[in-house]
Amino acid sequence: MGQIILASASPRRKELLEQIGLCFDVCPAKGEEIITKNVPGEAVEELASQKAREVAGMVKTYGAEHEELVTPQDVMVIGADTIVAYGEEILGKPKDEKDAFRMLSLLSGNTHAVYTGVSIILLAASGKAGELTFHERTDVVMRHMDAQEIRRYIATGEPMDKAGAYGIQGKCAIFIDKIDGDYNNVVGLPVAAIYRELKKLGIDLYLW
Amino acid sequence: MGQIILASASPRRKELLEQIGLCFDVCPAKGEEIITKNVPGEAVEELASQKAREVAGMVKTYGAEHEELVTPQDVMVIGADTIVAYGEEILGKPKDEKDAFRMLSLLSGNTHAVYTGVSIILLAASGKAGELTFHERTDVVMRHMDAQEIRRYIATGEPMDKAGAYGIQGKCAIFIDKIDGDYNNVVGLPVAAIYRELKKLGIDLYLW
Repeated sequence: MGQIILASASPRRKELLEQIGLCFDVCPAKGEEIITKNVPGEAVEELASQKAREVAGMVKTYGAEHEELVTPQDVMVIGADTIVAYGEEILGKPKDEKDAFRMLSLLSGNTHAVYTGVSIILLAASGKAGELTFHERTDVVMRHMDAQEIRRYIATGEPMDKAGAYGIQGKCAIFIDKIDGDYNNVVGLPVAAIYRELKKLGIDLYLW
Repeated sequence: MGQIILASASPRRKELLEQIGLCFDVCPAKGEEIITKNVPGEAVEELASQKAREVAGMVKTYGAEHEELVTPQDVMVIGADTIVAYGEEILGKPKDEKDAFRMLSLLSGNTHAVYTGVSIILLAASGKAGELTFHERTDVVMRHMDAQEIRRYIATGEPMDKAGAYGIQGKCAIFIDKIDGDYNNVVGLPVAAIYRELKKLGIDLYLW
């Protein structure tokens, strides 16, 4: 069996890979995120790719330095990045509670789009390497939240580490009327698309 | 504060109420489920109402018998039932693995509908009572599963206690391409609709 490495510190991405029954390691990318694109789908692909490449680089370096210690095996590195887009604005994580209030007021009563970019780097024990990068979009219809509801939600502390200042898998669930697309893409990792895109390449995620 | 009672043994419904931060008790209904309707939305409302009424009946009996022991308080009983509908067929829990294979083969590569009925019985300490019953529908697009994928999924044991023989919140996530509607409705309890419908009646679920 090869090794699967999740290049993300997000507990929600880790839970999703656990949910589908994978065995994997976690090695979060630490590099600064540099966005040069302003189209949401391109931006998340770029950021996902940066994360996956940073961690894949460490694997290769480690392998080269410890050749006598490491049994060569196939390695798959999965990087991901999620943003919320509303109109022309791209929403990342809120800077503070005031920013969270602003973001939630924007999204309240409206439909926004959530983009997750995924970059999968395949490093074969034979030395071959490849990268597969794509993104998924899900539209989310949020119910109207009044000012009291927004303040109460912010007081839970949940918005602060999340793109768009909300967690669909947390207490914000009561304000999500419906989605059109993949739910797990909103949570942060479109596991269906990962399985599907690898299958197209003839790779069974469970037999990696 | 009043008491909230979930009239269901489903661990997934319990997790959803925990997710949104409610304090509640669990008291599963045990009565036989009797369906007299064949329209999916009506059938789930009927079953949800049976469950909620059964448990609400126990609350009232207990209150009457132990009047000196019990501090009168408002009680909210939540019953729910979920079914999967494909074409004219209503799919409940599979009878055995062969039945699970048949159900998953039906759903594979197609769009089906998931209905959850919710019945909320409000028992005021003053003696007044009311019932609120509704259902939500979510459409689910399932990717094509080949026979090997269906067998592998059945081998996880996940399908056996679930309507339609799959759990969207489990290992079947990799086969769900997209949904149109509320995700938690597919999991088994549309918490957004519960919050919303109670709010229409002037009831704040968090201040019950």
